[in-house]
Amino acid sequence: MKGRIKKIFENADADAIIIMNGSSVDMTFFYVTGFESGLFENSAAVLYPDGSMAVICPELEEGAAGGKAEVFSNNKEKFELLKDKVSGERVGINSRAISHADFMKLKELLPEARFIDVDDAIRRARVVKDGEEIKRIKKAGEIASHVSNEIVPYLHEGVKESDILAEINYIMAKKGAMPSFDTIVAFGVNSSIPHYSTGEKEFEFPALMDFGARYGRYCSDMTRTFVSGREQSRVYEIVREGQEIAFDMMKEGVKATVIQNEVDEFFSKHGFGKMIHSLGHSLGLEVHDGFSMKEDFILKEGMVITVEPGIYLKDRWGIRIEDDVLVKRNGIEILTKK
Amino acid sequence: MKGRIKKIFENADADAIIIMNGSSVDMTFFYVTGFESGLFENSAAVLYPDGSMAVICPELEEGAAGGKAEVFSNNKEKFELLKDKVSGERVGINSRAISHADFMKLKELLPEARFIDVDDAIRRARVVKDGEEIKRIKKAGEIASHVSNEIVPYLHEGVKESDILAEINYIMAKKGAMPSFDTIVAFGVNSSIPHYSTGEKEFEFPALMDFGARYGRYCSDMTRTFVSGREQSRVYEIVREGQEIAFDMMKEGVKATVIQNEVDEFFSKHGFGKMIHSLGHSLGLEVHDGFSMKEDFILKEGMVITVEPGIYLKDRWGIRIEDDVLVKRNGIEILTKK
Repeated sequence: MKGRIKKIFENADADAIIIMNGSSVDMTFFYVTGFESGLFENSAAVLYPDGSMAVICPELEEGAAGGKAEVFSNNKEKFELLKDKVSGERVGINSRAISHADFMKLKELLPEARFIDVDDAIRRARVVKDGEEIKRIKKAGEIASHVSNEIVPYLHEGVKESDILAEINYIMAKKGAMPSFDTIVAFGVNSSIPHYSTGEKEFEFPALMDFGARYGRYCSDMTRTFVSGREQSRVYEIVREGQEIAFDMMKEGVKATVIQNEVDEFFSKHGFGKMIHSLGHSLGLEVHDGFSMKEDFILKEGMVITVEPGIYLKDRWGIRIEDDVLVKRNGIEILTKK
Repeated sequence: MKGRIKKIFENADADAIIIMNGSSVDMTFFYVTGFESGLFENSAAVLYPDGSMAVICPELEEGAAGGKAEVFSNNKEKFELLKDKVSGERVGINSRAISHADFMKLKELLPEARFIDVDDAIRRARVVKDGEEIKRIKKAGEIASHVSNEIVPYLHEGVKESDILAEINYIMAKKGAMPSFDTIVAFGVNSSIPHYSTGEKEFEFPALMDFGARYGRYCSDMTRTFVSGREQSRVYEIVREGQEIAFDMMKEGVKATVIQNEVDEFFSKHGFGKMIHSLGHSLGLEVHDGFSMKEDFILKEGMVITVEPGIYLKDRWGIRIEDDVLVKRNGIEILTKK
């Protein structure tokens, strides 16, 4: 994945960059290695400015690495191997993903090194997707869209949230995808909690389903809410219009916060105040893949972003609509069918 | 969760402990809060020696926190709130779970503080489960055992790995559980890769399935391998005996590495060398919940540990058997039916 590594170095003034996995894995590891199989906890990749890299991993990942990694069988060997791979004074790290414990170990291991935080360079490289990444996200989006169609007949009186979750994940799995996060099925009052954890409540409107597929490690993220009655329908219509406003504004060169503010103002005008979460976030190897629409960044061609306005009436119910879009020069392409 | 917080402070000489979630969440947050719903990214809990705590979270988690957290709507408010909650000089952090970026922010926020790594105190508290935790892990174990029985009729010629994954996750979901990690279904040669990522291969022996249920946030972890023919059966029998050796040795007071070595020696005696992964790991809020059997710790009553010997013939196939056990004073209780 030479091109991706070079892209990171465009904004990173380092002699080498260490991508360090602890018990939590920096997904940048898969961005640079492209490994299709394996978990790669406690592994590392060392990147060089010419686009090359060295990968080290524990014995049990050797098969998944397919001969593209050097293997250690204990921590002592791990850090000896790692030390061997790092040359130069300026050593980049991804401060958001490396644990403080691992950073302290690197400092001890490389006493001569000057550590440079290349978190931003990594985020800026990863947020603009290349062809292979877009292909996979599109497929993940197609699978989520397929779910959103197939799930409708299962929604009826007496069905429980966990039943719908089971069907959603099943439809996805039959298409070769895992859920990209814990599927949310929230009926009635539970829909007022954006990050509700699916339970046993029986069917009631609104019926909110927030789910995503992970295909070839790349994620989609989609929300559909089914409503009933005049009040819910009115709010649904406002949320839908909020999404349209965002869609119409999105294209290369526009500031994310300008779009966020526009939708916030639209909801405020209708008496609902600002949203309690951001309008969306970039999407890729992770569901929250770098930036949220409340952060200071400018849309670029090749970014994939969720657009997920929501209105929540405390202790009553909530409505959210979420689709994934690919930013283009003059507009967007919606990756989840509407 | 006063008792749990006090248990952490038994081994932590600090005036306050900050549990800090970034985009990756320290599951200790749920250990101390007991929150049933929500994701709680970018949230924090501050713990005090008397067992009390303060929780802060972004607006969108307010509902999930059920009135038990103070809410911020941006980063500035977040760090002001956090500063307010921390008093005293000695501030504990969980170095394995906090990102280096978040640690640097804390250092800037609390220039007077002396930071103390309480990682070990947290791991030692969490590794010995209390009654509520054991109840949940037992339920998660029951669900996994149920899956292992129900899945058998689906295993036949022509079925694909991803089909079996779909059925496994479906059976779990119908029991109210999510997969505790990406379910592994590995047929034939794929079983030689311990952390294989499920694909589309058609049924072939050995058929290895590694899956776990997450119920009320607590995990089980179980592996079954179906074999065919004399060679696979012989290796299966050795793996099974290896597991029996471990079962027989496990009880309060025994060193983990002594058990690991005993099984390694047994496999070596049969010509397979040492295992390429540890014999097991503690289990709880996380699948890898603190310790592996290769680490220096002594078994205690109330620990829940996986026992998962495996033998892998490179580029041919692998066999693993995995069950979860609760350590008792004089032996173990197996939580996944055999």
